[in-house]
Amino acid sequence: MIRAGVVGAAGYAGGELLRLLLAHPQVSAVVAGSASLAGKPVTTAHPNFRKRTDLAFVPYDDVKDVDVLFLSLPNGAHRLDEFRGRAPLIVDLSSDHRLRDATAYETWYGAAHPHPERLADAVYGIPELHRDKIRGAKLVTGAGCNATAAILAILPLVRAGLADGARPIVIECKVGSSEGGRDASDDSHHPERSGVVRSFRPVGHRHTAEIEQELGCRVQLSVTSVELVRGVLATAHVPVKDISDEKVLWRAYRDAYANEPFVRIVKERTGIYRFPEPKLLAGTNFADVGFALDPLGDRVVALCAIDNLVKGAAGNGVQAMNVALGFAEDAGLGFVGLHP
Amino acid sequence: MIRAGVVGAAGYAGGELLRLLLAHPQVSAVVAGSASLAGKPVTTAHPNFRKRTDLAFVPYDDVKDVDVLFLSLPNGAHRLDEFRGRAPLIVDLSSDHRLRDATAYETWYGAAHPHPERLADAVYGIPELHRDKIRGAKLVTGAGCNATAAILAILPLVRAGLADGARPIVIECKVGSSEGGRDASDDSHHPERSGVVRSFRPVGHRHTAEIEQELGCRVQLSVTSVELVRGVLATAHVPVKDISDEKVLWRAYRDAYANEPFVRIVKERTGIYRFPEPKLLAGTNFADVGFALDPLGDRVVALCAIDNLVKGAAGNGVQAMNVALGFAEDAGLGFVGLHP
Amino acid sequence: MIRAGVVGAAGYAGGELLRLLLAHPQVSAVVAGSASLAGKPVTTAHPNFRKRTDLAFVPYDDVKDVDVLFLSLPNGAHRLDEFRGRAPLIVDLSSDHRLRDATAYETWYGAAHPHPERLADAVYGIPELHRDKIRGAKLVTGAGCNATAAILAILPLVRAGLADGARPIVIECKVGSSEGGRDASDDSHHPERSGVVRSFRPVGHRHTAEIEQELGCRVQLSVTSVELVRGVLATAHVPVKDISDEKVLWRAYRDAYANEPFVRIVKERTGIYRFPEPKLLAGTNFADVGFALDPLGDRVVALCAIDNLVKGAAGNGVQAMNVALGFAEDAGLGFVGLHP
Amino acid sequence: MIRAGVVGAAGYAGGELLRLLLAHPQVSAVVAGSASLAGKPVTTAHPNFRKRTDLAFVPYDDVKDVDVLFLSLPNGAHRLDEFRGRAPLIVDLSSDHRLRDATAYETWYGAAHPHPERLADAVYGIPELHRDKIRGAKLVTGAGCNATAAILAILPLVRAGLADGARPIVIECKVGSSEGGRDASDDSHHPERSGVVRSFRPVGHRHTAEIEQELGCRVQLSVTSVELVRGVLATAHVPVKDISDEKVLWRAYRDAYANEPFVRIVKERTGIYRFPEPKLLAGTNFADVGFALDPLGDRVVALCAIDNLVKGAAGNGVQAMNVALGFAEDAGLGFVGLHP
Repeated sequence: MIRAGVVGAAGYAGGELLRLLLAHPQVSAVVAGSASLAGKPVTTAHPNFRKRTDLAFVPYDDVKDVDVLFLSLPNGAHRLDEFRGRAPLIVDLSSDHRLRDATAYETWYGAAHPHPERLADAVYGIPELHRDKIRGAKLVTGAGCNATAAILAILPLVRAGLADGARPIVIECKVGSSEGGRDASDDSHHPERSGVVRSFRPVGHRHTAEIEQELGCRVQLSVTSVELVRGVLATAHVPVKDISDEKVLWRAYRDAYANEPFVRIVKERTGIYRFPEPKLLAGTNFADVGFALDPLGDRVVALCAIDNLVKGAAGNGVQAMNVALGFAEDAGLGFVGLHP
Repeated sequence: MIRAGVVGAAGYAGGELLRLLLAHPQVSAVVAGSASLAGKPVTTAHPNFRKRTDLAFVPYDDVKDVDVLFLSLPNGAHRLDEFRGRAPLIVDLSSDHRLRDATAYETWYGAAHPHPERLADAVYGIPELHRDKIRGAKLVTGAGCNATAAILAILPLVRAGLADGARPIVIECKVGSSEGGRDASDDSHHPERSGVVRSFRPVGHRHTAEIEQELGCRVQLSVTSVELVRGVLATAHVPVKDISDEKVLWRAYRDAYANEPFVRIVKERTGIYRFPEPKLLAGTNFADVGFALDPLGDRVVALCAIDNLVKGAAGNGVQAMNVALGFAEDAGLGFVGLHP
Repeated sequence: MIRAGVVGAAGYAGGELLRLLLAHPQVSAVVAGSASLAGKPVTTAHPNFRKRTDLAFVPYDDVKDVDVLFLSLPNGAHRLDEFRGRAPLIVDLSSDHRLRDATAYETWYGAAHPHPERLADAVYGIPELHRDKIRGAKLVTGAGCNATAAILAILPLVRAGLADGARPIVIECKVGSSEGGRDASDDSHHPERSGVVRSFRPVGHRHTAEIEQELGCRVQLSVTSVELVRGVLATAHVPVKDISDEKVLWRAYRDAYANEPFVRIVKERTGIYRFPEPKLLAGTNFADVGFALDPLGDRVVALCAIDNLVKGAAGNGVQAMNVALGFAEDAGLGFVGLHP
Repeated sequence: MIRAGVVGAAGYAGGELLRLLLAHPQVSAVVAGSASLAGKPVTTAHPNFRKRTDLAFVPYDDVKDVDVLFLSLPNGAHRLDEFRGRAPLIVDLSSDHRLRDATAYETWYGAAHPHPERLADAVYGIPELHRDKIRGAKLVTGAGCNATAAILAILPLVRAGLADGARPIVIECKVGSSEGGRDASDDSHHPERSGVVRSFRPVGHRHTAEIEQELGCRVQLSVTSVELVRGVLATAHVPVKDISDEKVLWRAYRDAYANEPFVRIVKERTGIYRFPEPKLLAGTNFADVGFALDPLGDRVVALCAIDNLVKGAAGNGVQAMNVALGFAEDAGLGFVGLHP
């Protein structure tokens, strides 16, 4: 049994970390750090915990003596030094250590990385990509939610050598409002945000860099906000060469994911849920992937749905912790999701 | 042809006033006053006007030389003196002059009214109630959106003497997020506001005072926020004595509303839209009313749906202006609404 | 460890029964009966179970040799005889055995009850009301979702003798679309159902009878459909006599619910979630209750939010099973819910 | 003044035709044909018309003696012969006459066209493309809603020779539920359809053929259903060669659309509505277009938002009628839209 700490526990991803860790069979104690709400019960920020926990937030200084520490701080905070000595395993959900290349970091984040020497130490923490490196790692970094969905959609095609590298992969992510975090803004004001189909970031989204790093190919990402609180659907248009039969695609996806506990291949001929659908995934750690072959044989539409706060953040972090510490990979991640 | 001015034209009700006045057949010019956006095009606040008007906001001082002036200022601003000399007709959408009784004002608004002598001058501007007084009036006050819906639902029963005064009328209004105005807040943050059924004001809502004033009977009002941007549905539970036949109710509603241009009695045995439904009314000035008789004969459920920004604010104000100035009552208010 | 069967497992409540029973620590096997989908995997109807279970639907005849049998059949099917011998404990979620009075049944359901002699045998299965009778019972009946919310909102006031019996209690339930079940209809067509505030049943709702039976007082129920899939908020306007202080109300609610594992009193002065909110309860078995005292002292607004498919159906059924069979009352019902 | 007829007036596009034609300044009479609702008031299908019209549906045989006849029949009905003699101008909203190439029709619609000789007669009725041919035409065909949005997004880049023809254009349309028409289905059942991000047609959408015909270049279209009733946002990823400055794009869009009454270029650096947004367009005939240049200079994201039932169907049809008959192009199409 271990003790787990969360820095930034009052945010949306922080709340999901608490939800998963408080019910985790290998976690005996959770320390919830919040700078703004220290001293208040966690139910102040997360009313779903009413009558289920008496936990209160503590100041960041008191998040210590833990076996694993999750950092759920704003991107660009670069506060790793402050927390590194407090736990043998750090899971950093921010974007501070996702890129291995300091030049790419500067290009996409608009500022030089303050500690480029560290970038090589961190493991990009999607277990489906780097399970071996995560085992025993000391610094695991979370992945961007849009990046996670995009990578998992496309990965089997790249691994199988089916993607035509001569053309970039166009990816469009449709996302919910929780991606923007818990601070209110003019953009998130309900009368303005409700019912939108808003081209939030048509070009230049930072997750592009992570996707290209992990897939090793050029991608063109656009992100559109839709009426949804939780969830991402990545629709990737992957150029391929003369594929005439879906069998080769089935093989690629099965090779990649048949043994993955949290990846499901969703592709049905009939029914309502023929392709991955984020609506079914709220609260779960699943990544549902699917694909469709263009009749002309030169494009595969690769799809992946996730809950941005779970497989796109907190749940993936707990899964990585499970791998790093040698627990059952699905420990504490058993919620199956709701329908309807 | 007249010139019309709007003070507070950058708000949601202000935007609807602009929409209606710019297309009004009797209005030749519109002056749009905004303290915060003076100098900016009105499309800054109201993007729906793109390519339809070059109008820009002006400072409040420049909203003058007009034939009618709409005040769309925050409740409690009490700035009538500042604007009264600028137009022969003032339509004040705030709650500052809705109550005739200064004591009631103090009870419900928590502060003494600064100009109690004025309260007798203002006409409560729902034409279905006070059409005669509005004709030729100089100061017409708008009505609360929840009050408007509640009053129009119940009025026929009171007029016909069917309401049992021994018991209070329970009214529950279900409302959309635009009632809160255009300023973002933690409450209106989309991830928190989306999909709620939130008991916003279970007791003590200020519109209670207006409803009691106009109906002359005791009411108990509750307001619940639901997933909706525009719209109110008032569901009023009116105690009655031994009514065994809906005919008497039909007569009461027809007597009250058969000749009203903007009130429709909606009560059907079949179909999807058997009762008033705010969804159908977005952008229109209609008040749809309906009713159902409890089989035990001692309660009538009286219903009214409106668009809170139109019949509940701007549209009703323009209707009152039409009455006050002798125009056709439905001038500029012809939008029929959308389905689906 | 027990074996559990579900008849009607392809419906929405049936799917929730499967979700809860498959993860229940005391349930070793689940038999899922469906007349229409026998032979098909349960994922055909409930795609959330993909990769989590290989269970397939079986014909009703094969739902046998179980320790508990849940009947999730249409109201009025009256098929108890067919299934009664198959398990020592039957939990019937339909309305067939909720009313103890055959006359009331005929009044509200429009047909004589075919087996009036049975009505005395069934226990109305809300543990918060009848825990002692449920222990060891053989036939437990579920409760209507609107009835459950209404009863739990009002119960403390009735128990404490605070409700003024001279006037009826007005109850308005706001409900989501899953209450209508899984069959598509013109009413449920998305373009027509999306964004509605629809007076679904202003008078004459059948759950009235259950509420009156359990509370022993007259109620007037109305049900309004809002934009929501799962959830009910009951807003009850309870006449009281001259209450000047909320302390007496706090005492009544604490007396009733302090020791209840699934009832939470939600009443806060600040924050976004000051009162019960169904949005927080999707997938959970909680009933959140709250109240507000009218400043005039003659009305208490009593509130209760539930997930209609869980505490309003499947979850309450599992809770009742736990009580009946002597398991921990919260076994298998630990999901805490999601925020945001 | 003319007389206008509508065949298929009970459908969603039919209802919008009635709304626009009944308020059209050049239309003196409207004949509303419905096979299923003949004899019933139009309010049976379109409750928004209550108290605004006494019009009733007539059988198709009685839709005659009109100056213009709108056919709003299912795709593939091929009933032109039946109606052609009834009016000098036919506007066919179906897909029966959109493609000029009978081979392409067979490829995309899965059946030989029964009257290939007719395909040359019809004018593809988007005025922004074929205004000159529409003037005086006898058979004008509507365009697919997704096709309309996609074409108007991309057209300026093709006209200006900026699109790199060596690579296909990837287009993703996000669409609302009204695209599916008024018949309920399992897919449109509210509990299943609410809140989805559903990959409705990732490959093989029939509108591909229209887009390729009108733009003369290869496109790869995907359609995703989102939580929305009305509206389409087309996001087109247009390959370009080394564009380093947005000025060339501004010029292309201004050249194409500066004089178009219904096309607005929406591209702002600040504010909430920086790009085209279908939410603002419900009920209007606007096509809002915008664009963004990928920093790498090899992709332009071209955007277009419309209301699928107006600019994507009925409104565009009325606009085409206005052009064909020499009326002011915006006659009857003045609704500015709502915000919020």
